[in-house]
Amino acid sequence: MRAVFQQELSSVQDGLVLISDLVLDAIRNASTAFNTADIALADQVISGDPAIDRLSIELDELSIQILARQGPVARDLRVVVGALRMSALLERMGDLARHLAQLTRRHYPEHVAPDALRDIFIEMAAQDIRTAELLNRLLRTQDLELAEQLIEDDARTDALHRSVFDAVLRADWTGTTEQTVDVTLATRFFERFGDQAVSIAKRAQYLSTGEWVMSRR
Amino acid sequence: MRAVFQQELSSVQDGLVLISDLVLDAIRNASTAFNTADIALADQVISGDPAIDRLSIELDELSIQILARQGPVARDLRVVVGALRMSALLERMGDLARHLAQLTRRHYPEHVAPDALRDIFIEMAAQDIRTAELLNRLLRTQDLELAEQLIEDDARTDALHRSVFDAVLRADWTGTTEQTVDVTLATRFFERFGDQAVSIAKRAQYLSTGEWVMSRR
Repeated sequence: MRAVFQQELSSVQDGLVLISDLVLDAIRNASTAFNTADIALADQVISGDPAIDRLSIELDELSIQILARQGPVARDLRVVVGALRMSALLERMGDLARHLAQLTRRHYPEHVAPDALRDIFIEMAAQDIRTAELLNRLLRTQDLELAEQLIEDDARTDALHRSVFDAVLRADWTGTTEQTVDVTLATRFFERFGDQAVSIAKRAQYLSTGEWVMSRR
Repeated sequence: MRAVFQQELSSVQDGLVLISDLVLDAIRNASTAFNTADIALADQVISGDPAIDRLSIELDELSIQILARQGPVARDLRVVVGALRMSALLERMGDLARHLAQLTRRHYPEHVAPDALRDIFIEMAAQDIRTAELLNRLLRTQDLELAEQLIEDDARTDALHRSVFDAVLRADWTGTTEQTVDVTLATRFFERFGDQAVSIAKRAQYLSTGEWVMSRR
């Protein structure tokens, strides 16, 4: 019975890693699609999102079955409750990658961001990919230094987010109203992607420390 | 022991109702502040948000303690797991009300939305308040017709959201770039508020039907 339980617990952790593999692919492809106006890649992200949603629901089912059958306590309980939370956050990260892909598709064959913002968005994309990579390693290794790094890195994402607004609000901004709208949405999606990763990093810290009380931010 | 357990379960449900009372106040005040450029009311929403966050964390702690001590199964387990999810969604609804209040504060003494969009935003606000009221009644009564209504109503929120973009992208739009940016963010916040309510409504349906598999959207 105990062996089954341990196997189920490690299935939960494997499930999180698998979903985060797909989220990493999604944000890599969505970012490249966004920055190169690649509609085929954008479509790949859009058509791949239901798989993330499905795996996330399956992981929830498994977690709830474990709660029902095993009544885990202490750290085991935290692993299962943590997985319920993390799966929802990973699923949301997949949605955000899909939203970026949908913006890309809507503007094709044009780029979403005008030339003046190209460099900032290349940097934001690189930052989100780095975030997804750190997150993936964190879920694989449970190395809490990676959680720290993720939380610290988010300040960089926020700074890039603000710099998009600074650029759009400068007197020399020549974008159309549609570009202003879509660049606002895009930077918000990139920035929220980082926020979800921070929430997962904080969950990982909580798994380790066992402190229930924590901010969700 | 059983009596204690039942009392704890009803504390969980009372906790959800209490948080949704605060979220209803927050969206009412944030909407009025947004539509009337009322900075005092906006500040009230901003300073009230930490209470929502704290109650939500306390509810999580209670839920996790119940899982650890009681090992609930069947419907009781669904109530507790449902509360863990709903508390996170309600907390996010509070954040969105705060974001609207922060936009209001940033533009004061001007309105965020220019005159041309005033009517649409009054309607969106009314729609979000109706959503928060339905949600509050749903959590109080567990009447699943309210869940159905919430899910149906969201199409109206989405239509209003699209009509903001339609108005901004019309040739006669005369807003500044800053107004375009902030109106884009504002409509997104109003629309996401509705999405979170739909997620809670679907959780409520799941509580009743006991089907694990469900979309998060």
